[in-house]
Amino acid sequence: MIRILGIDPGSQRTGIGIIDADSNGASHFIHCEAVSLLKAESFPERMGLLAEALDRIIAEHRPQQVAVETVFMARGAQSALKLGQARGAALATVVRAGLPVHEYAPRLIKQSLVGTGAAEKTQVQMMVATLLKLEGRIQADAADALAVALTHAHGNAHATTRQLPPDWRGRRRGRR
Amino acid sequence: MIRILGIDPGSQRTGIGIIDADSNGASHFIHCEAVSLLKAESFPERMGLLAEALDRIIAEHRPQQVAVETVFMARGAQSALKLGQARGAALATVVRAGLPVHEYAPRLIKQSLVGTGAAEKTQVQMMVATLLKLEGRIQADAADALAVALTHAHGNAHATTRQLPPDWRGRRRGRR
Repeated sequence: MIRILGIDPGSQRTGIGIIDADSNGASHFIHCEAVSLLKAESFPERMGLLAEALDRIIAEHRPQQVAVETVFMARGAQSALKLGQARGAALATVVRAGLPVHEYAPRLIKQSLVGTGAAEKTQVQMMVATLLKLEGRIQADAADALAVALTHAHGNAHATTRQLPPDWRGRRRGRR
Repeated sequence: MIRILGIDPGSQRTGIGIIDADSNGASHFIHCEAVSLLKAESFPERMGLLAEALDRIIAEHRPQQVAVETVFMARGAQSALKLGQARGAALATVVRAGLPVHEYAPRLIKQSLVGTGAAEKTQVQMMVATLLKLEGRIQADAADALAVALTHAHGNAHATTRQLPPDWRGRRRGRR
């Protein structure tokens, strides 16, 4: 059993999802939440809040691996800058906590969960709920975080762990 | 005397500058360096290295305030995303360390040091060397970090400190 922390970074709200992945391919829901950063009084404070929330969640749930979506495109430089800052704050925090980080492209996440890289966001969210036996609506950012965690579980969470030396930290071995 | 940490975030190299600012307006050089992030084996690892370096520098030099350049523009979404991640990693680290962060626009930094917002980068670097009585060439990113620290020293480092309650963290009071 491997515990995976999925992160969907955002500068207003960051989605967090934690699952346990069986070696036989099944995954179990552990936790999800959408961390709101809007109560911070400045943008730097938001990044501090995000790091603080991740530290709290890591301490509480003790994930062993981290999965995060790659970002190849953003709608313009301004939104790329904001998204980038949230992503950087999250990456710095999990790497500092000693966790290996795996990155997955959005198309691969859709492919892994729905079977086609062109799937709609709602289809991905429905598959997340089905695979983790969740009832009711999941907040969208939290669902995206669970989706990337599931992609890592389907991909190489177990293979990765077996192959890596103890001092391994964050080298990318994601299927691309 | 107030110790100011200036940061010039970059995803390949992040400039760091530390100065002590007198209440009578003079500033003294304490430390500067350019933290290279290229030895990391992945992008997430780079963000971890940056956070680690900042934690080390904060522990060693005990700055009381942080100054960082605002970024209003970047050359396209890809570079904004990279720069944003480095900036987010740096902000999360200093806010988590309890330091107040002040942001200054590039034009204001040039105005503050050279007297005109349209100054050349080399003029800014020369003024940094002159004000801090530095001889020899300073690495460009480290010089930029010292420049934003000096801008904060000239601006309101002392005023800010006097006015703020002990639990103050990162609220923006920079002149804009």
